[in-house]
Amino acid sequence: MAKAPVLTPQAEDFPRWYQDVVAKAELADNGPVRGTMVILPYGYSIWERMQAAVDALIKKAGAVNCYFPLFIPESYLRREADHVEGFAPELAVVTHGGGKELEEPVVVRPTSETIINTYFAKWVQSYRDLPLLINQWANVVRWELRPRLFLRTTEFLWQEGHTCHATHDDARAYAERILWEVYTAFMVDVLAIPVLPGRKTARERFPGAINTLTCEAMMVDGKALQMGTSHELGQNFSKAFGTQYSSTSGQLEYVWQTSWGASTRMVGGLIMAHGDDSGLRMPPRLAPIQVVVMVVKAGEGVAEAASALTSELEGAGVRARLDDAVDVSFGRRAVDWELKGVPVRIEVGPRDLANGEVIVVRRDDSTKGPWKLGEVAARMAGVLESIQGDLLAAATAHRDTRTHDVTTLEEAVEAAASGFGRIAWSALGAEGETRLREQGVSVRCLRMPDGRVPPAEDTPGAVALVARAY
Amino acid sequence: MAKAPVLTPQAEDFPRWYQDVVAKAELADNGPVRGTMVILPYGYSIWERMQAAVDALIKKAGAVNCYFPLFIPESYLRREADHVEGFAPELAVVTHGGGKELEEPVVVRPTSETIINTYFAKWVQSYRDLPLLINQWANVVRWELRPRLFLRTTEFLWQEGHTCHATHDDARAYAERILWEVYTAFMVDVLAIPVLPGRKTARERFPGAINTLTCEAMMVDGKALQMGTSHELGQNFSKAFGTQYSSTSGQLEYVWQTSWGASTRMVGGLIMAHGDDSGLRMPPRLAPIQVVVMVVKAGEGVAEAASALTSELEGAGVRARLDDAVDVSFGRRAVDWELKGVPVRIEVGPRDLANGEVIVVRRDDSTKGPWKLGEVAARMAGVLESIQGDLLAAATAHRDTRTHDVTTLEEAVEAAASGFGRIAWSALGAEGETRLREQGVSVRCLRMPDGRVPPAEDTPGAVALVARAY
Repeated sequence: MAKAPVLTPQAEDFPRWYQDVVAKAELADNGPVRGTMVILPYGYSIWERMQAAVDALIKKAGAVNCYFPLFIPESYLRREADHVEGFAPELAVVTHGGGKELEEPVVVRPTSETIINTYFAKWVQSYRDLPLLINQWANVVRWELRPRLFLRTTEFLWQEGHTCHATHDDARAYAERILWEVYTAFMVDVLAIPVLPGRKTARERFPGAINTLTCEAMMVDGKALQMGTSHELGQNFSKAFGTQYSSTSGQLEYVWQTSWGASTRMVGGLIMAHGDDSGLRMPPRLAPIQVVVMVVKAGEGVAEAASALTSELEGAGVRARLDDAVDVSFGRRAVDWELKGVPVRIEVGPRDLANGEVIVVRRDDSTKGPWKLGEVAARMAGVLESIQGDLLAAATAHRDTRTHDVTTLEEAVEAAASGFGRIAWSALGAEGETRLREQGVSVRCLRMPDGRVPPAEDTPGAVALVARAY
Repeated sequence: MAKAPVLTPQAEDFPRWYQDVVAKAELADNGPVRGTMVILPYGYSIWERMQAAVDALIKKAGAVNCYFPLFIPESYLRREADHVEGFAPELAVVTHGGGKELEEPVVVRPTSETIINTYFAKWVQSYRDLPLLINQWANVVRWELRPRLFLRTTEFLWQEGHTCHATHDDARAYAERILWEVYTAFMVDVLAIPVLPGRKTARERFPGAINTLTCEAMMVDGKALQMGTSHELGQNFSKAFGTQYSSTSGQLEYVWQTSWGASTRMVGGLIMAHGDDSGLRMPPRLAPIQVVVMVVKAGEGVAEAASALTSELEGAGVRARLDDAVDVSFGRRAVDWELKGVPVRIEVGPRDLANGEVIVVRRDDSTKGPWKLGEVAARMAGVLESIQGDLLAAATAHRDTRTHDVTTLEEAVEAAASGFGRIAWSALGAEGETRLREQGVSVRCLRMPDGRVPPAEDTPGAVALVARAY
């Protein structure tokens, strides 16, 4: 008799598989208020590692962290017309505070351009104050009618960067720098997800932006996920809020701005980009636990050997965890560590130990073999890097296999049934984009054939990447 | 002519001095919604370092991080009678979401006992699940009518720990462990603030707690600041939310709980515990910048030497910053670094450099002297540790000088005019506490003569620490 699967198989029902993984790997649960989310300790440990890596890259790109209030006066939102139109339907509004009705309702930030520009307008005086590069880690609220844990939640955690520049060129270059050096670098190098950076069409832009750049990833089911965005805001907000600087020639000029964000949605992307029917597969550079050392069963010196090996691995810089809970069956524990996607499992049992060996099992491809106990710590870093590379290679192959060059709208819809379609933007255009949307397919981004971001929507040669999306 | 002071002198107007420091050291600004706060980059870098240190101690104490929603259904708050009574006057209430009036209003969390217990009730089944130790870093909102930056703000950032235990004894021991091993250890060892841990009187307890432990610090002006609290919740919340476990004997029992928090208020405490008329004085273990290397003025090889020294210090593990902004006067830059409280300033000028020397200035006591350039990096760690120790010693001496043993209520009020009074709790009692409060003096905590926390309010020998407080 076949073993009952722990998870709904991906091929049977991918959305159900996703829900199963989120629950059984103990990543998150639904909150009591519609669309809110409880992030459980293991899920949060993944987010903490994402934060640390992204934060380091943001600081390397010259931005500094600060913190702006959760509450924004409703009137601030209204100052930029497109912005309020985009966010009004999603706002949570506080009408009572301290036991009284408020004179002016306040909104819970859906994003912070408006409140931050209020301060930029005070801080920026001269060209010497530019560029001004700030970031914050915060929670934001966008009322969500069709919530899905991590992917679309009413409250989510993110970072939002906000910058001011003297020139359009400088702002554009910085928005691109964040796209490549922060988001793409993090997602490819750490998450092992081969995202495609590109330019959003006018229709898909952030409300209030003049250009939105995006990283688009392919999930196991062939659908796209937007993993992070970087916007050029032009002078829309600086004009609405009066953020001006005096130039070298003494003229008052409006600053050019960018904003950019990546959120807990990345956890959803991680699950769906690498997961399989046994659960998560964590890329080792991100994994909160890289190696679990399991005591297979009690036996003379077994627990001691497992504990010593765990310490030895930690000493070698590996994030190792000892599992000596022998009162729970080995099989059940092994299934749990597979669910959580721990890249390497080491089985320490009495028989192998008698031969001076342990069994080392890779989560990504299930390869398994006896290793000499004395060699484990020294060899582990290399294996972890192999897994990291293999996960990226597998995701890239998957993406490429499911990406098709097409020339007609009908073919684009067909390509999007199983993956990405690539079609000349000149052959599609805004009208074609509308017709695709009627069939549930969207233009994820525009890219140049060499992978660069088109400097404008109508750049000759721009190719539209089309897909169904989360 | 005397130089105009940068700050209002402390002796002239301490609250005004505090406001001046917060503004001029660029720590924070008021938000547009009453009582909210913008934390500026330098202020936030201080908070980030506090977070990192406290987070490490929390993890060492066995708790794991997770994240619960910002929004709590109003009905949850009402389940624990004292809790809702305590927090109702301070709540911010969301009545509209996604363009509609909500069926049930939601409150913005003032603290998370109620929402977390909803999940604890699901997670805890058996004694094997205990103790359950979790923590979250989050923003909370308590509507504040008399806001002061960092000290009392409508929104603040904090960590809140929440735990479940099988027995009253275990819960009590953990609440004390957090008090000593996390809060007291951090505040004394890192912040160099000699806090006094103790037990709150019944009147001063957290709403819903059966016991509140606290760390009380003396500020430069002799007033007290509560820097962190650790509560025993008894079974109040577990009974309200049905958080039960089956014991080893198979009986269903309610868990015993703790909760504990420390917030951005600690930044206010740091400012007021160590600051002087020139600004902040940062304890080196916390300081985001430990040493600033200043180019005094342009000159042959000066900028290069300063830059090389900065790198050398960084290589030696010192958080060093180069200041080569010679277009701004040296005096103005030096005043700015003093305002920010950077523990050590190194002046690199052409004349000293010709002698192979630089001038090293300690922020804490203004001592100053030439050091051989080649010795700076090697000697710096020792100097930083001296400053750390001297700041703690100075704050301890200040506290002790301003603390008086008294025997009557009148003497207690007098002692509180300039610092702390210590009076036998048996001589004061709840009635005396009420009379003190009428004169603006509160019982900060009860302590045993040997420094331990009294196991109960009526423990013989318990001494009340009384003061005016922030």
